[in-house]
Amino acid sequence: MTAFTLADLETIVARRAAASPEESWTARLAASGMEKAAKKLGEEAVETVIAAMGGNKTEITGESADLLFHLLVVLKMSDVPLADVMAELERRTGQSGIAEKASRAAD
Amino acid sequence: MTAFTLADLETIVARRAAASPEESWTARLAASGMEKAAKKLGEEAVETVIAAMGGNKTEITGESADLLFHLLVVLKMSDVPLADVMAELERRTGQSGIAEKASRAAD
Amino acid sequence: MTAFTLADLETIVARRAAASPEESWTARLAASGMEKAAKKLGEEAVETVIAAMGGNKTEITGESADLLFHLLVVLKMSDVPLADVMAELERRTGQSGIAEKASRAAD
Amino acid sequence: MTAFTLADLETIVARRAAASPEESWTARLAASGMEKAAKKLGEEAVETVIAAMGGNKTEITGESADLLFHLLVVLKMSDVPLADVMAELERRTGQSGIAEKASRAAD
Repeated sequence: MTAFTLADLETIVARRAAASPEESWTARLAASGMEKAAKKLGEEAVETVIAAMGGNKTEITGESADLLFHLLVVLKMSDVPLADVMAELERRTGQSGIAEKASRAAD
Repeated sequence: MTAFTLADLETIVARRAAASPEESWTARLAASGMEKAAKKLGEEAVETVIAAMGGNKTEITGESADLLFHLLVVLKMSDVPLADVMAELERRTGQSGIAEKASRAAD
Repeated sequence: MTAFTLADLETIVARRAAASPEESWTARLAASGMEKAAKKLGEEAVETVIAAMGGNKTEITGESADLLFHLLVVLKMSDVPLADVMAELERRTGQSGIAEKASRAAD
Repeated sequence: MTAFTLADLETIVARRAAASPEESWTARLAASGMEKAAKKLGEEAVETVIAAMGGNKTEITGESADLLFHLLVVLKMSDVPLADVMAELERRTGQSGIAEKASRAAD
């Protein structure tokens, strides 16, 4: 059983982004600017969508991992702590089913 | 400080997906099939990309929360446990900087 | 047989974007800013990808039509004439197979 | 002034897709299956979205050209004639402003 969490991934992304571009692919991506990082995030999402439509669990697992990794790179580059995103998720999901229904109706 | 984790979100998504469609928007989404769920995932990714390009932290936080939520819906519908994705992330990131460089070169 | 072309669509999009927002959904979209228009383009692309994976020709036709429409809205809002895009396509595809191979190898 | 049309591009894509994979990148893409072709379409859409947000006309022109090219590859692989997509666009846009408003309201 793994105890690896998204918070651990955030720490790893931060460390790599702070490394020299020679040492780390993540540092090179971070140095290349938001256009490149956002593009990678979008590409990994497209691949996750395609994997989900294909139904192969190994592919879905791998693409989801890539998507999470690139989301954390974008968050790091945007100076948005993962804790803020998780707090927002807690706030949104800490609603009753009725409240969820009402708040989603406007989607 | 929040202790809310992606594993907590997985539990909430599973509970809602198992509720009756009358009670839960998530149950209705899950019942509507993978095309709809994958579409929502893709849309939230596009919105996260646009928010990242715009640079507004509140928007980035909100869109990232939506993206994570819909990724967990797709994983649930695909019968892929979050633990498998986290284990894959641990495996991929448990490499030295040198190894990362080599494995990413083929991207 | 239809003689309707992308240039005809460009004319229609331009006319609608110039109409009052009360009269035209396209005018309202154009007035709402690039974030909204780019988001619609991205969403239609995701739906085209999902339709392509599903293989239903009617859905692929409909989603491709939506994608082209929203691409022309984004071009209009960006002040990029369709003729410039077509000229770029002519330039890129006016290559021999060998040249194509070489130019694509760097992708 | 260019007279190059989307129908010309369709002809070129069809010719290249029918070539040997050794000669044509397009033939290799078509041979690699819909997952790869749909992925390229999605990636080019993400890049068009990012270019649109950035506002650089040269980038928007180039990314739109790539997006149209890969849309035509997906249509070719799906056996959907461009004429069907254009007929659908003619049908949808051959409506009065009022009708447009009504039909879009359900979006």
